[in-house]
Amino acid sequence: VDIVIRELTGQDLTERFLETLASLSEVNLSVTEAAEVFQRRLRAGIRTFVALHHDEIVGTASLLIEQKFIHHGGKSGHIEDVAVHHDHQRQGIGSLLVAHATEEARKAGCYKVMLNCFDDRIPFYAKLGYRAHDRGMRLDFSGTAGS
Amino acid sequence: VDIVIRELTGQDLTERFLETLASLSEVNLSVTEAAEVFQRRLRAGIRTFVALHHDEIVGTASLLIEQKFIHHGGKSGHIEDVAVHHDHQRQGIGSLLVAHATEEARKAGCYKVMLNCFDDRIPFYAKLGYRAHDRGMRLDFSGTAGS
Repeated sequence: VDIVIRELTGQDLTERFLETLASLSEVNLSVTEAAEVFQRRLRAGIRTFVALHHDEIVGTASLLIEQKFIHHGGKSGHIEDVAVHHDHQRQGIGSLLVAHATEEARKAGCYKVMLNCFDDRIPFYAKLGYRAHDRGMRLDFSGTAGS
Repeated sequence: VDIVIRELTGQDLTERFLETLASLSEVNLSVTEAAEVFQRRLRAGIRTFVALHHDEIVGTASLLIEQKFIHHGGKSGHIEDVAVHHDHQRQGIGSLLVAHATEEARKAGCYKVMLNCFDDRIPFYAKLGYRAHDRGMRLDFSGTAGS
């Protein structure tokens, strides 16, 4: 498959991008609202990558870089929200996105990258060099938007 | 135990603070370097909390707030680097820090908070409302500082 991966730009914020994310979880954002959210993400230094096939968005993944005190002021990468459009699943696009985000974390000087997944995805991430390390714990707030 | 929890300030960046973090992992930072790291963390919006007992730092925990596109542009909290000074462990200070950071995530409008821990700490976090949700996967870069 002929896939290009690059950073998301404002012009990518279309229904197609939101539809791609919706394969992961409900999005429920207008294109206008998405542009505001994108600005807040940029200000916080969150990087969003998109995978394109013939100029059409087919996947996305995000990278947060956490500046720590420990590890001599080291940086830890966090990969979040890996999503592939439902019409393009099982074509290796998710792997390309995770490998790209991982490489960007390395270039940014991270000493490690973390991500969370369900157990059935462990073999997928193991092929990309990740090992099961610890447990992801979650607390949901009731009565908040999107809970 | 008489514990006060508040945000870290520049004046808290002492050997004592670094010693507290060192109960978690190697730190290997001078106080001057820690001040530079603290500025980078503030710019990225990472919040650092400290627990004090009679004005002495006895613990710390951090909170990252991730602005997402999914969940109607919702925010996800990430609790990181919970550490209690080795002279003050098993006094409930870690619980107070995690409860404080969780409450700050709620006030900031997060719909959930995530954290990662080893399996033996699941009961500790379960008492604070967290449930085992997924797996933490990790990739280490060799040859980078702090790896």
